[in-house]
Amino acid sequence: MSYKSMSSEELNAELENLKREYQGICEENITLNMARGKPGADQLELSMPMLDVINSSSDITSVDGVDCRNYGVLDGVPEAKKLMADMMNTDPNNVIVFGNASLNIMHDNIARAYTHGVNGSTPWCKLDTVKWLCPVPGYDRHFKITEHFGFEMINIPMDENGPDMDMVEELVANDDSIKGIWCVPKYSNPTGTSYSDEVVKRFANLRPKANDFRIYWDNAYAIHHLYDEADSQDEILSILDECEKAGNPNLVYEFCSTSKITFPGAGIAALGTSKENKDYIIKMMQVQTIGHDKINQLRHAWFFKDFGGLKSHMQKHGELIRAKFETVLNVLEEELAPCEIATWTKPNGGYFISLNVENGCAKKVVNMCKEAGLVLTGAGATYPYGNDPDDSNIRIAPTYVTAEELKEATHILAVCTKIATLEK
Amino acid sequence: MSYKSMSSEELNAELENLKREYQGICEENITLNMARGKPGADQLELSMPMLDVINSSSDITSVDGVDCRNYGVLDGVPEAKKLMADMMNTDPNNVIVFGNASLNIMHDNIARAYTHGVNGSTPWCKLDTVKWLCPVPGYDRHFKITEHFGFEMINIPMDENGPDMDMVEELVANDDSIKGIWCVPKYSNPTGTSYSDEVVKRFANLRPKANDFRIYWDNAYAIHHLYDEADSQDEILSILDECEKAGNPNLVYEFCSTSKITFPGAGIAALGTSKENKDYIIKMMQVQTIGHDKINQLRHAWFFKDFGGLKSHMQKHGELIRAKFETVLNVLEEELAPCEIATWTKPNGGYFISLNVENGCAKKVVNMCKEAGLVLTGAGATYPYGNDPDDSNIRIAPTYVTAEELKEATHILAVCTKIATLEK
Repeated sequence: MSYKSMSSEELNAELENLKREYQGICEENITLNMARGKPGADQLELSMPMLDVINSSSDITSVDGVDCRNYGVLDGVPEAKKLMADMMNTDPNNVIVFGNASLNIMHDNIARAYTHGVNGSTPWCKLDTVKWLCPVPGYDRHFKITEHFGFEMINIPMDENGPDMDMVEELVANDDSIKGIWCVPKYSNPTGTSYSDEVVKRFANLRPKANDFRIYWDNAYAIHHLYDEADSQDEILSILDECEKAGNPNLVYEFCSTSKITFPGAGIAALGTSKENKDYIIKMMQVQTIGHDKINQLRHAWFFKDFGGLKSHMQKHGELIRAKFETVLNVLEEELAPCEIATWTKPNGGYFISLNVENGCAKKVVNMCKEAGLVLTGAGATYPYGNDPDDSNIRIAPTYVTAEELKEATHILAVCTKIATLEK
Repeated sequence: MSYKSMSSEELNAELENLKREYQGICEENITLNMARGKPGADQLELSMPMLDVINSSSDITSVDGVDCRNYGVLDGVPEAKKLMADMMNTDPNNVIVFGNASLNIMHDNIARAYTHGVNGSTPWCKLDTVKWLCPVPGYDRHFKITEHFGFEMINIPMDENGPDMDMVEELVANDDSIKGIWCVPKYSNPTGTSYSDEVVKRFANLRPKANDFRIYWDNAYAIHHLYDEADSQDEILSILDECEKAGNPNLVYEFCSTSKITFPGAGIAALGTSKENKDYIIKMMQVQTIGHDKINQLRHAWFFKDFGGLKSHMQKHGELIRAKFETVLNVLEEELAPCEIATWTKPNGGYFISLNVENGCAKKVVNMCKEAGLVLTGAGATYPYGNDPDDSNIRIAPTYVTAEELKEATHILAVCTKIATLEK
């Protein structure tokens, strides 16, 4: 029953009941962690056969005849470039395959712009102010990077089609200290939003005042669908194609990785961008490294064989995690929906459900959960500087815990949400 | 017969003969590459069994119970920290294990100092001048990093005990714009020199004017001996211990890797330093990455089992490459020694022989070799800015080519050296 239609007596009784229940939960000494988007052990098992594709009797030579056990090959072995290009819906010539983490590529890309500029522009460390656009809620590790380099972050509201493009267009057209924007264009972290075609096209057609402005297009969930049916899968336009068409080829860096496909930490990651951007990055990278782990690049390429292999592998991931998403959604629906005190997303893919509780309640909910043994992503983490102005958003990461634990965890979250709302 | 004791007629005749021989060599269309210190294919074979130690039926859990297939563990798995600590003769608590390349660690360490300073100092990008000491001849990729960041590099002469410490001490004591020094303390690239105990102690006891001055101690050849006998193996003092003893614990960053132990590009690399330095680096690294490839870290640790396993593996490398070093040395001894026109090093380990031809001849020798089909490291590369003031030093990398090719290659080098000397 909606809290809005309950009398204050009824509300008081409800609160007393909930507090008693919460007390009981606390006494159970539960330890559950839903803080990060970590794959579950069952998902990791799917990639174990990859560890056999290269062994002591393998001929570890790439298609272009390079002995991948030795030094060299700065932009990645051709097989891996093809695989990652397919994931980004672009040409292998646009791709650099790196080591194990796209976060590292993004960080280093910004570090390079900070120390040496972008394709010849003034190094950002020589500027008084660098500003960065941050669609919110968003990915905490993105915001940490731009905070680390001292950039001034500007919140951009998101709706069901993506960031508020009126605001983005106006800001970048008029302020040349704005040098970039963070985007997770598909199954966005944490809302699950996928950018509409119109939003992608408007990004590709931006006319930024700063010629060293770049879109950081973190396509982290490019093929991370929960459902097999095409009409339950989000698809987005290729930003690289759209930028090319718009005469803006250098506007974007796209990132992807296999962290949530094979093994987080032991995967491969890639950057897709224009020839001019790529040439500049390669020139700088030559100073940093002789090359990334080519054996692991081949291991991935040989395991999946082609993009078809990659997609069917991701179907298996979807099978394992969609039940978890549905468990969370069912508990929220059963326990919170009737009260009319929260809203949440129902994504078709990605790793998160985004819960919005009443303003001023998120921190309290997360703290109460923590005291009861359930660790969630810190409230506010989905905003720059950890500051959610409404104190309303909570990120739920359903993948790492088991299905049974998940039911209990979501119940605890629901109880804490009700208490925090009633006490307010 | 020494060219010094030959008449000008005899010298002319010798030059004509040599030119005829060189012409003949050029017509053979040889293709040989001795430019880089790359292991030979026979060396890479030694590590192939490492690719079997982790397979689809492995329990990929580290000693402290972490599932190494998933996210996390910023400073490396305990097994790998122990292995790399043993290589650096230090405690695992002082160690961070990274990805595949120590060059990358050094670059990023300098990039961090440039953008954020060292343990709280002013970021170097905010300073007008940053200077760096470069013992010469040295490693070209070191010099490229400091050139990339615009530092002013100062040549420090090397002798058989290491860098000229009188000069180092005086410079760092009086100039607070000097922020670091490159060192390859053991089997130095390219001279094969190992620093004497006195030199290591004087490094540890430096009193730099700049409190953000650091020694970059690239222990790239820590266990890379050519010979099994203890009296033919160089050993150096532990710089981390000596710095600790000298009350200078934060003075040094030590680097090492398995690039020339297992697979270049698919190895693991590490940093050893004080707790205070390490804590600062970890704090910054948290923004850059969630962690490096732990599966590859375990693969290395499990393959070698312990430091003893690592050392016996390196004995096998020594067996394979000492014949190559001796081939080069024999040809140089036979063909160049009698002429008295060049000197060269006879190292006990490492990857290089350093050849000094007469002043003003190195570039010409390297160019003539190139035209004859033998690619050497560019003349001058062993000096900052690629500028060898004497135009005398040539780096010979004997490991990558086969023993037979090596004989021919060294012969070509000898012929070109003689011609260049005579023509001068």
